[in-house]
Amino acid sequence: MAELIDLRSDTVTKPTAEMRKAMAAAEVGDDVYGEDPTMRRLEAIAAEKIGKEAAMFVPSGTMGNQVAAMTHLQRGDEVILEAESHIFYYEVGGLALLSGVQTRTIQGRKGFMEPAQIAAAIRPDDLHFPRTGLLCLENTHNRAGGAVLTAEQTRVMAQVAHERGIPVHLDGARIFNAAIALGTDVRELTAPVDSVMFCLSKGLGAPVGSLVAGRKDFIDKARKVRKLLGGGLRQSGILAAAGIVALEQMVDRLVEDHVNARLLAEGLANIPGLTIDPDAFPTNILICSVAKLGISAQRFSALLAQHGVLANPTSPTEIRFVTHKDVTKTQIKSALNIINQIVKAIDQF
Amino acid sequence: MAELIDLRSDTVTKPTAEMRKAMAAAEVGDDVYGEDPTMRRLEAIAAEKIGKEAAMFVPSGTMGNQVAAMTHLQRGDEVILEAESHIFYYEVGGLALLSGVQTRTIQGRKGFMEPAQIAAAIRPDDLHFPRTGLLCLENTHNRAGGAVLTAEQTRVMAQVAHERGIPVHLDGARIFNAAIALGTDVRELTAPVDSVMFCLSKGLGAPVGSLVAGRKDFIDKARKVRKLLGGGLRQSGILAAAGIVALEQMVDRLVEDHVNARLLAEGLANIPGLTIDPDAFPTNILICSVAKLGISAQRFSALLAQHGVLANPTSPTEIRFVTHKDVTKTQIKSALNIINQIVKAIDQF
Amino acid sequence: MAELIDLRSDTVTKPTAEMRKAMAAAEVGDDVYGEDPTMRRLEAIAAEKIGKEAAMFVPSGTMGNQVAAMTHLQRGDEVILEAESHIFYYEVGGLALLSGVQTRTIQGRKGFMEPAQIAAAIRPDDLHFPRTGLLCLENTHNRAGGAVLTAEQTRVMAQVAHERGIPVHLDGARIFNAAIALGTDVRELTAPVDSVMFCLSKGLGAPVGSLVAGRKDFIDKARKVRKLLGGGLRQSGILAAAGIVALEQMVDRLVEDHVNARLLAEGLANIPGLTIDPDAFPTNILICSVAKLGISAQRFSALLAQHGVLANPTSPTEIRFVTHKDVTKTQIKSALNIINQIVKAIDQF
Amino acid sequence: MAELIDLRSDTVTKPTAEMRKAMAAAEVGDDVYGEDPTMRRLEAIAAEKIGKEAAMFVPSGTMGNQVAAMTHLQRGDEVILEAESHIFYYEVGGLALLSGVQTRTIQGRKGFMEPAQIAAAIRPDDLHFPRTGLLCLENTHNRAGGAVLTAEQTRVMAQVAHERGIPVHLDGARIFNAAIALGTDVRELTAPVDSVMFCLSKGLGAPVGSLVAGRKDFIDKARKVRKLLGGGLRQSGILAAAGIVALEQMVDRLVEDHVNARLLAEGLANIPGLTIDPDAFPTNILICSVAKLGISAQRFSALLAQHGVLANPTSPTEIRFVTHKDVTKTQIKSALNIINQIVKAIDQF
Repeated sequence: MAELIDLRSDTVTKPTAEMRKAMAAAEVGDDVYGEDPTMRRLEAIAAEKIGKEAAMFVPSGTMGNQVAAMTHLQRGDEVILEAESHIFYYEVGGLALLSGVQTRTIQGRKGFMEPAQIAAAIRPDDLHFPRTGLLCLENTHNRAGGAVLTAEQTRVMAQVAHERGIPVHLDGARIFNAAIALGTDVRELTAPVDSVMFCLSKGLGAPVGSLVAGRKDFIDKARKVRKLLGGGLRQSGILAAAGIVALEQMVDRLVEDHVNARLLAEGLANIPGLTIDPDAFPTNILICSVAKLGISAQRFSALLAQHGVLANPTSPTEIRFVTHKDVTKTQIKSALNIINQIVKAIDQF
Repeated sequence: MAELIDLRSDTVTKPTAEMRKAMAAAEVGDDVYGEDPTMRRLEAIAAEKIGKEAAMFVPSGTMGNQVAAMTHLQRGDEVILEAESHIFYYEVGGLALLSGVQTRTIQGRKGFMEPAQIAAAIRPDDLHFPRTGLLCLENTHNRAGGAVLTAEQTRVMAQVAHERGIPVHLDGARIFNAAIALGTDVRELTAPVDSVMFCLSKGLGAPVGSLVAGRKDFIDKARKVRKLLGGGLRQSGILAAAGIVALEQMVDRLVEDHVNARLLAEGLANIPGLTIDPDAFPTNILICSVAKLGISAQRFSALLAQHGVLANPTSPTEIRFVTHKDVTKTQIKSALNIINQIVKAIDQF
Repeated sequence: MAELIDLRSDTVTKPTAEMRKAMAAAEVGDDVYGEDPTMRRLEAIAAEKIGKEAAMFVPSGTMGNQVAAMTHLQRGDEVILEAESHIFYYEVGGLALLSGVQTRTIQGRKGFMEPAQIAAAIRPDDLHFPRTGLLCLENTHNRAGGAVLTAEQTRVMAQVAHERGIPVHLDGARIFNAAIALGTDVRELTAPVDSVMFCLSKGLGAPVGSLVAGRKDFIDKARKVRKLLGGGLRQSGILAAAGIVALEQMVDRLVEDHVNARLLAEGLANIPGLTIDPDAFPTNILICSVAKLGISAQRFSALLAQHGVLANPTSPTEIRFVTHKDVTKTQIKSALNIINQIVKAIDQF
Repeated sequence: MAELIDLRSDTVTKPTAEMRKAMAAAEVGDDVYGEDPTMRRLEAIAAEKIGKEAAMFVPSGTMGNQVAAMTHLQRGDEVILEAESHIFYYEVGGLALLSGVQTRTIQGRKGFMEPAQIAAAIRPDDLHFPRTGLLCLENTHNRAGGAVLTAEQTRVMAQVAHERGIPVHLDGARIFNAAIALGTDVRELTAPVDSVMFCLSKGLGAPVGSLVAGRKDFIDKARKVRKLLGGGLRQSGILAAAGIVALEQMVDRLVEDHVNARLLAEGLANIPGLTIDPDAFPTNILICSVAKLGISAQRFSALLAQHGVLANPTSPTEIRFVTHKDVTKTQIKSALNIINQIVKAIDQF
């Protein structure tokens, strides 16, 4: 076994040579004083690119989502979000602890929640009810297999909230994957929402960091929340320099990850015992069932790892594959060969 | 219109003459010092009756549930509970604000959550996940129409949690209604859980108060939480006196409320335009659909009120009727007459 | 030893015969629906008496203070309050847990904080600082020995906060004691503040309950906070009935408690080994040092209890005596005799 | 005016050429998976250097302190800390919001709190009291002018807490300054405490980051808290690489900052109108009173800035100067000249 083929997540991507060069040369200042010129530049570029008035760097996507929630919400509010959304599922219960708010989950379909479902979940004014304070969307939707929300889907969901005076936050950790998959300007996808978080450190390959974007007064308020959570960094221009490279050079190439994902999906679909519908995964995340193999996804993942292919189980019967810039088409083919042989070996077992 | 027939809730019940006499004569002391003899007596009677080591008075069912949750849980935990449970639905988002915990809801069937659903919702140990800290049950289940959990159902749900070291709390606001409906000792229904809250002030008719019961060390810890929430009362023996009457004299008569509810359900089922399955409501709560009438439950409720029958809408198409000691069989019949006439008038409209 | 002379606190007062009669006869309704006529009446009387637009019943003073704080404050704010104030000292850390706010304490003098101290503690606008969201006062001040704030003192403290847009809450658990001691209308003492909490259950003798008063919109908002904390009671008219008697019949007689306290203070001052300045305690609370006796206040308190006199230590060297309606002048004299003999016995030891 | 002499804080220090080189070349991995080799190395070096079993990187000192507090504390606890400590004063009220704990402040002397003061602040077991859950120390103490706690002072304070089972956290943002000033191994200063936070990004010159150190089980628990706050970074080896340089090359040179601070202090002491005792500031932070000048520290700071010397006011009459690696001895002398001229101009005004 020569090398690892790491399909666990696009979070494993390493900075490019250009990023390393930019980081080494970055002009910096103390960003807590608002004096880091490279960070100022990243935030300006990011705001423009994502189509919002202002943007703020945060060291992680989780912090970005939580800061946005804390800025929108009052203690005791309720938040409507999809039952398998990252904010609900993977952020350590932060909404309750940090914002003091109750989560009201809706079972969506590929990340989309029916407007009627959302409307039914919004609380009327009543002594017994928390105030509905925020609607959260996720695009692409991680646990739904990188599912994409169109601009229109985003608009109709946001509208239900806005009509009742409720703001909308978009967890857009992989929003550029959505834009690329849809062939649309990312700003069409963010226009309907009040705030959006997106990551520099996943498919875009920067080592560290995400951005929260929204109206200027929202971002001004968010800066204090970020400080409280310990997200006020000093010479963060180092990280911003890589982020600028990510935004300027790494967005368009996401299409390669989608092509590789399609290749992988079709290959997996041809392996007897694995179940996957290639058409169901429009971006760089695949979810494949191993139920028919008669072994757990956990066990299957361990077997793959023994042969140099890394992928995470996401349920007792499902395994997730994520393509990204550090996995080549050749590696995808190698991975398929390895998986094929493992499945055969299981069958003969 | 002579008198109101109040079917909104059994919370409207007024203290009996016996209760008033007991309150007027109650021997009292400062219960913050633990010196109120009548309160001591109520808590002992309650513990014995509910089958737990110790019990503690709280001024409301909401406080009882929240104190129990705060006592069981650590900040940042996750709680599994039914999607329409009172704790989730009607307690102003208290779990997030007071305990700092995330709610993980399961869509149950008549209050029952499949063990497999519960097992799937329990979080494994992972950096991204909150710890699952509590399972909450509700018996009878208010929004499921006073649905009853059997001792066996309670046992199998609790077992899933207990096997993973997770405690179980029972919102038993109307647990005596469940016991009466099942013809079982209430202790069979509480045996599988670690803590239980039940109310003196609903069907049992006491003016104010509920109890939390559990192991002695749990209740000792809960007393400080109660103090923090402002539930430490002074000469609370006044209220305890009524509570003792409630526990000693008012439990067995709950059967009358169930008989009246059955009478009402069958009457409603016979009114064209109303939809209700009498067999679906084993206790004192009925939920009746007005969807076929072509008017909203809100509007229907208002019409009823104009004619002296009070009942709350619980969704855009459903209205809830609750029987209790202050509504007689004669009044149930009157209510049916009035409702019948209103429905006819709507049809002719 | 014939009977206990209980000088631990005025919280031990028992309801009068009139109160018991009123409770037994009280007209009641479901106060969560806002339908308890006796409660409506108590709240109206209380608002009028305390000089605010509206008032709301709460089952304890602690809940009253915490509800007021939660209503005034946003998560993450800072509250300025006296270092030995009840809210900081005796409310189980509720401000941090319930309101999510940091306490900024000032060492006052007899409950009075210098305006310059308050001004210095108010946070300027800065990324590192929480927002100052509330100033809390206490009148009479419990740990300062029932110390009284005059209307003028209240005004100058409140003014510092109001000039910077910061609201002021008054913990007036014993505000009527202050008014009686000053010979002023209680409304002069509450006029400078935005909200006030006062108790029915201490010197006024009601078994359970306190009120929060303020502007109507403030109280409307507070009702939901009360519900969240579990303070929404059902047939609370029972308690309100006693509260009405307390407000109408028990305020003026507080002067007797002050006279008795003076008598007790002077008696204690004459006992060698005890240190107390009778002029320092204008209301019903005395703090007496036992430092010269060479035994701890804890031990002294235990000795007193063995001889039927109950009083709480409040520090390693100090013991607190509180007079109230259930301790007569004769009992005060008996207590002095008993204390005198105990001190003599200690001396001879 | 040629160049800025920035004496506002040592947080403005920029990464050295060595750090930039190390960052550009750093071997990285996904640290959320625990796979960043450079980060692993930094954490090992840091733990060894600070004398604790384990260490964890955090993106800021504030996050380090708050994560430590959240890991030590339970919701509803009370924390004892110095009245002007950074955690209380400058961390946006985080203790209350994030940990849900009340702050119990003690007025120390140069950061030292008398053991008797600490003992008096520890809460006995009582229904009304929060549990005392943590004692926080700060070394060097920022607002006390870089004051140093000796190992013995640290020991006696920690002992009071430990005797009652209460853990001790040390905010050692500038702990290496303390060690250098005392001429002691830093491990002597951290030995008495359970956890310590120290910064790579202040005097040590790294662009971003701090460490929390303690027992292995404590750090394991802290990793989940860090994730919740959004402090889980991806290819953080970039930052770790600079941190390793900071720890290996930048500690010993802190002595230069202290020498420069002494030079600056003596120079300021010689300027009529300025008040400072050079002996009072053993490290790199000076606090100088401008009270005699008859202008506010805010105004004085603005005048300095107009002439290229940056320094922050810390009270209405005091201004703080901080020396660091990016201010040379020559610049200190220039700064003194400029300040001298400004003071003269003020006098002539």
